[in-house]
Amino acid sequence: MAKVAIMGFGTVGSGVYEIIRTNAGKLAQNAGDTVELKYILDIRDFPDHPKKELFTKDFNDILNDEEVTVVAEVMGGLHPAYEFTKSLLLAGKSVVTSNKELVATYGTELLEIARNKNVNYMFEASVGGGIPIIRPIHQCLTANNITKIAGILNGTTNYILYQMITNGKSFDTALKNAQDNGYAERNPAADIEGHDACRKIAILASLASREAVDYSDIPTEGIVGITLDDVKYASELDCVIKLIGYAEFMDGKVYSIVAPMLVKKTDPLSGVNDVFNAIKVTGDCVGDVMFYGAGAGKLPTASAVVADIVDSVKHKVRSKKFTWYKPETDIMAGKDAKKFEYFIRTGDSIENVKKSFGEITHTDSISAGELAFVTRPLTASEVEAKSKELSDIMTCIRILD
Amino acid sequence: MAKVAIMGFGTVGSGVYEIIRTNAGKLAQNAGDTVELKYILDIRDFPDHPKKELFTKDFNDILNDEEVTVVAEVMGGLHPAYEFTKSLLLAGKSVVTSNKELVATYGTELLEIARNKNVNYMFEASVGGGIPIIRPIHQCLTANNITKIAGILNGTTNYILYQMITNGKSFDTALKNAQDNGYAERNPAADIEGHDACRKIAILASLASREAVDYSDIPTEGIVGITLDDVKYASELDCVIKLIGYAEFMDGKVYSIVAPMLVKKTDPLSGVNDVFNAIKVTGDCVGDVMFYGAGAGKLPTASAVVADIVDSVKHKVRSKKFTWYKPETDIMAGKDAKKFEYFIRTGDSIENVKKSFGEITHTDSISAGELAFVTRPLTASEVEAKSKELSDIMTCIRILD
Repeated sequence: MAKVAIMGFGTVGSGVYEIIRTNAGKLAQNAGDTVELKYILDIRDFPDHPKKELFTKDFNDILNDEEVTVVAEVMGGLHPAYEFTKSLLLAGKSVVTSNKELVATYGTELLEIARNKNVNYMFEASVGGGIPIIRPIHQCLTANNITKIAGILNGTTNYILYQMITNGKSFDTALKNAQDNGYAERNPAADIEGHDACRKIAILASLASREAVDYSDIPTEGIVGITLDDVKYASELDCVIKLIGYAEFMDGKVYSIVAPMLVKKTDPLSGVNDVFNAIKVTGDCVGDVMFYGAGAGKLPTASAVVADIVDSVKHKVRSKKFTWYKPETDIMAGKDAKKFEYFIRTGDSIENVKKSFGEITHTDSISAGELAFVTRPLTASEVEAKSKELSDIMTCIRILD
Repeated sequence: MAKVAIMGFGTVGSGVYEIIRTNAGKLAQNAGDTVELKYILDIRDFPDHPKKELFTKDFNDILNDEEVTVVAEVMGGLHPAYEFTKSLLLAGKSVVTSNKELVATYGTELLEIARNKNVNYMFEASVGGGIPIIRPIHQCLTANNITKIAGILNGTTNYILYQMITNGKSFDTALKNAQDNGYAERNPAADIEGHDACRKIAILASLASREAVDYSDIPTEGIVGITLDDVKYASELDCVIKLIGYAEFMDGKVYSIVAPMLVKKTDPLSGVNDVFNAIKVTGDCVGDVMFYGAGAGKLPTASAVVADIVDSVKHKVRSKKFTWYKPETDIMAGKDAKKFEYFIRTGDSIENVKKSFGEITHTDSISAGELAFVTRPLTASEVEAKSKELSDIMTCIRILD
């Protein structure tokens, strides 16, 4: 019998509890051993819970119990999740997590401890909620060199953009709807400024390259500046605007960015609506594959956590497979390593635009007194320099290639 | 060092050769052992091939070579692929395959032999080409009861329907284009009559239920009867027509069908264009997840075959995980176990339609003298009986729910 513990009895934690309770037979069959929940750690009281005897407020109960071999850390936040996880791994217990912030920030160190202690540190639920992505990326990797990853990694911003695109709602109204529906926090900064997507693409890029990509090295733009006019222009160009977490692997270096991008309607990412997430992975042999599903939510996320629990019970050491290492040199390609076409709106004259940008593709203007156009592929520095030569830039958005 | 053989040097076989040759280092790293190609079996001569010494026309060279532990069967067809595979498994060698016809027809027996001999019989490439689907389904299964699978499993028919939908081409023209582009065989029956998709959904349903689903028990309709008017009506209903392989799991029974269906534009399957494939899997916890990619082609399919080779080298026995068993009783739910809404076109009167079908939803008619409508959810027997009461039915297509 494998004894496990849950740390954090919030949305995901209660989902993990529910799946372990209702699917016990199936889990035992797949893990090759019964999975018994021994502790639930939470600072709050749950006096009416049918299994109230499982609850503890003392982390040491779990840490010092030799019977407990796998712990699900679903408390979120950096501290004390980091200290708890480190102690558990050092004590020879496997840890599975949905905590993308922790994985993106301390993953490299925690994975190294897990390798040294011959235990697992698994994080399928940290990206894309219930979408199987960590294992499929590894499987793709087996026979492919992964060349690119482009993902819709944040459900809140996708919901907001979808409302703008489909229902013509303004950004502010769409954000308020998202908050009213429980899709966005009262303080939505982590979502709408792109920080959440940034942590997730850092995890995927680290996994694909097997070298730690520091999320703080990834330029990150949110969707706050996107207007309904931008959305309409995008539609004229047969595109939709999506917040994209992007990574490209080039000659041992990683180029990565998080930004709103125009996604062509022929791209399968363009059809990912509402709060759904999708990750498109490009391999040199397989071409584009895409993984789609609910990127958040109680049971979807919990089912990914439980899959990791089962895998940890079954295979004492998996971390060697799903891991990455601290790079010996700087692996980040510079911001100019990748060229994008840009969609630009300006109040300046066509003469000035042509003087700065040379060959461009026009788009019909929606408002009088402005010019909308698409550039040829440019580096970030090029577009910055050229834009400075114009008197007025309203919008400047990359086009996903 | 793991010595492997390829049987069949056609499109997929040469792709497998190419990946093994060019990605040797990566494969060794992932397999934990170098992978060396020792034989290529083909009845044809390749006198100018740079590795012509690897070619043999004698299957016994592979069978009797104790050094060969993994064989890729990419010859296609039932015979002699079946006899060869059986002999290899009985001799204690693992076999990996892209041969959906063989897996769907003899998979149950071959998987049983593999289990008994403690070797692998793996078939990731048999469904969805390079899309990782067999392993993700298994992973989804860990914490979920899979309730439904709906897939676009045949690239040829998806290409034809996409040409009809997007470019207004007739079925015949679109089929000819598909043939000219090498997407369809000169004899396209296996694709356009749905038999290829039928074998693939049988494999997925078997894997999800762990009990053999016989493809000959799955009612199969192709896309031959689909007209441009049907496509236009579908668009009016905010749908597109796709050939869907469908399986639903209900109380230990499996309901399965292959048929063209109206897919709502809000369904992620609706955006799967061109020759691409996608499989949507619904789990009781995770909800809908979808896996998308190239369903055929040399390198995509070969990369899935190579992933299986690597897995077989690494894990001597995986078949226990990716397997199914001969059921002890009939597991097929009857054709009336599942209700669909139907889209129907008739030349009969509205009075007769209402007398037969009761409550219906009208659609604007495209041609004079016909009536187009959507029924409430009905069983197959119900829709057959009601249709018989009408004098003239042009179209009767299920709507995917």
